[in-house]
Amino acid sequence: MAINDIPRTIWWEDGKVVLVDQSRLPLVGDLLVCNTYDGVCHAIRGMAVRGAPALGVAAALGVALWATTAGARIDDVESFLAELDRVADEIAETRPTAVNLAWGAERMKRFARDNADVNLSELRDLILQEALAIRAEDEDRNRAIGANGAALLESGSRVLTHCNAGSLATAFFGTALGVIFSAHEQGKIEGVWVDETRPVLQGARLTAWELKLAGVPFKLITDNMAASIMRAGLVDAVIVGADRIAANGDVANKIGTYGLAVLCKEHGIPFYVAAPTSTVDLTLAHGDDIVIEQRDEREVTGVTVSGVIAPDSSAASRAFDLLTDGGPYEVPIAKGHQMVIDRKGGAYRFDGWFRIAPPGVEVYNPAFDVTPAEYVTAIITECGVVRAPFGESLALNCQGSGAIHELG
Amino acid sequence: MAINDIPRTIWWEDGKVVLVDQSRLPLVGDLLVCNTYDGVCHAIRGMAVRGAPALGVAAALGVALWATTAGARIDDVESFLAELDRVADEIAETRPTAVNLAWGAERMKRFARDNADVNLSELRDLILQEALAIRAEDEDRNRAIGANGAALLESGSRVLTHCNAGSLATAFFGTALGVIFSAHEQGKIEGVWVDETRPVLQGARLTAWELKLAGVPFKLITDNMAASIMRAGLVDAVIVGADRIAANGDVANKIGTYGLAVLCKEHGIPFYVAAPTSTVDLTLAHGDDIVIEQRDEREVTGVTVSGVIAPDSSAASRAFDLLTDGGPYEVPIAKGHQMVIDRKGGAYRFDGWFRIAPPGVEVYNPAFDVTPAEYVTAIITECGVVRAPFGESLALNCQGSGAIHELG
Repeated sequence: MAINDIPRTIWWEDGKVVLVDQSRLPLVGDLLVCNTYDGVCHAIRGMAVRGAPALGVAAALGVALWATTAGARIDDVESFLAELDRVADEIAETRPTAVNLAWGAERMKRFARDNADVNLSELRDLILQEALAIRAEDEDRNRAIGANGAALLESGSRVLTHCNAGSLATAFFGTALGVIFSAHEQGKIEGVWVDETRPVLQGARLTAWELKLAGVPFKLITDNMAASIMRAGLVDAVIVGADRIAANGDVANKIGTYGLAVLCKEHGIPFYVAAPTSTVDLTLAHGDDIVIEQRDEREVTGVTVSGVIAPDSSAASRAFDLLTDGGPYEVPIAKGHQMVIDRKGGAYRFDGWFRIAPPGVEVYNPAFDVTPAEYVTAIITECGVVRAPFGESLALNCQGSGAIHELG
Repeated sequence: MAINDIPRTIWWEDGKVVLVDQSRLPLVGDLLVCNTYDGVCHAIRGMAVRGAPALGVAAALGVALWATTAGARIDDVESFLAELDRVADEIAETRPTAVNLAWGAERMKRFARDNADVNLSELRDLILQEALAIRAEDEDRNRAIGANGAALLESGSRVLTHCNAGSLATAFFGTALGVIFSAHEQGKIEGVWVDETRPVLQGARLTAWELKLAGVPFKLITDNMAASIMRAGLVDAVIVGADRIAANGDVANKIGTYGLAVLCKEHGIPFYVAAPTSTVDLTLAHGDDIVIEQRDEREVTGVTVSGVIAPDSSAASRAFDLLTDGGPYEVPIAKGHQMVIDRKGGAYRFDGWFRIAPPGVEVYNPAFDVTPAEYVTAIITECGVVRAPFGESLALNCQGSGAIHELG
């Protein structure tokens, strides 16, 4: 068990974009193959790929996929560039909070215009190379973040992390979890506390899966157990990722992050944010301007589960045969239940959404919150560790890194 | 829609103890009929009945059920009293944190000894009347708690509550939710924020159900959204129940309560605890001595769902016929899934536990946490409102109320 047992998140294969379907992990390990950029948009919206850095890579590969498929049928440079801009913007708008989506899309737009003096066939090839470079850079950046962050941890550290800022949230290695992987390689990690991270459960599903594959000791808790273990003296540091960081150091991240930061303050525990400089948005003075995405209320009123069923009785087998007669079958279940059963490779795979709350309740479901800079002990990027006051130090840290503020 | 649309939680009927099965609400509304005190213990352990005051009533009715069934076959007073003590202790030990279980059991033991001068047949009848009185007193007490607490709230209040300290957690009306019901009757409630309360989801399942039946406006959130809405200025007060309150005002309550109290302090929001004096344990100097129950790790590694399926296609119907052939059928599902499907009244009812985390992960699952008294703005009991410092005021407040400290 080691970090290399974790599969890559997203890659280019046979002229297509292939990615691990994170919406069904850890119990179903599907790969999604995107034949068009539309498929990439679909994967982003459905959270098959998520995590700020991975979304940046997805945006870049999505633009490259368009350039080499639908875009390959355009033979006029100006039309090609105009359409590439439109496609890049469409990808960037699939989710509003993560700045890396816009960052990846903008970088591809600028790269295409900067290289428009070659012939179109060559330009398409350059665009693909650029997208692949973005993907490779992401892994390098994360290893640098990991090394920078690990230096902050003492030997025997018990670290709490929220959501998944792991390898799956990036091209490979992770940001907050990258710090934990690096520190674990240095023998510094006594254990990790993994918040399950309702409503989408990225902690229970993805972070737990990664730590298990990598052989890092951890315990799973529900989100509201964090305060209790902090009071018991069982947490030495909290490390989270970020979806967007404003110029003053305010951090937008998965809902629940701000509450953890308040708890850290109360218990005197350092609160670290690990993210690439591409997550820093120097065009935003502070975090209150960050758009917070509201998601489907069914994430809160129910639970989505995925699994594989291997029926081992003929009655069960016959029953599922009937249920799946004619292909994927949507069982019309009363009371708000819905289950899709699909037969593949002899086993039965299912995705089910199960209601837990009474029908017709109102829901508030923000995907992110903003943690004011005053609660952040340090921001760890690939360029180093930045401490408060963040204003100037953060801008200096991002200099030359290609962060979005340079794209004007 | 009004408070009276909520059914009673537990009652005596035809010589049996009947209760609403809270483990399957809100989607399945089963009643459990307990023929023996053993059935009551089973219902407590399985959380069919939960909530500190309801557990006190369950303990009392459980003892009465024993006295009038198995206990009715004992014709020697001393043997009867000795066995009653054993049964009461067994019921009290079904769950360790809620002091009301012990309170109800102790009160029945003392009552039996205090009235042992009548003949056994008459004693059994008195015991039953005492248990019924405990049940009736609980409702009266909760209405008093509600009135006392409602006086603390301003008109237009937006109140957050955690877990279920509602009617279902008591014989009727509720403690923390009783305050909200009273304030709503006075037109003071603009809205309620309901924390879903992982892992067992009592907020999403039970509190949401009660508020909907009672016509109180509310929004459901996940536990880790509380900090975000507090920072946005959307919460005027937090009101929770309690499973045990120490003499110094430390409060044991559902896991996540302490975190909310810290968030209240940070945001200058009053943090109220509503509980009957029977929840106050003056024999405990402070909360660190309260036993915190660790529960089944599958609460955290997966989600239990219940529902009713009304198949409306012949294929689905035939499939479920096969699945349920021969009565309740446990589908042998790989990968940790387990589903029990049971046919009743033409529809198919199911309870399923679905894994969300990878198999084999370590879990930490405390059911409760302790909130130090310094975070508690006021404790609301049926006798009034107690403010810090709690030491003396809490003892005075409990005087003559029959709280456990008098049973010594």
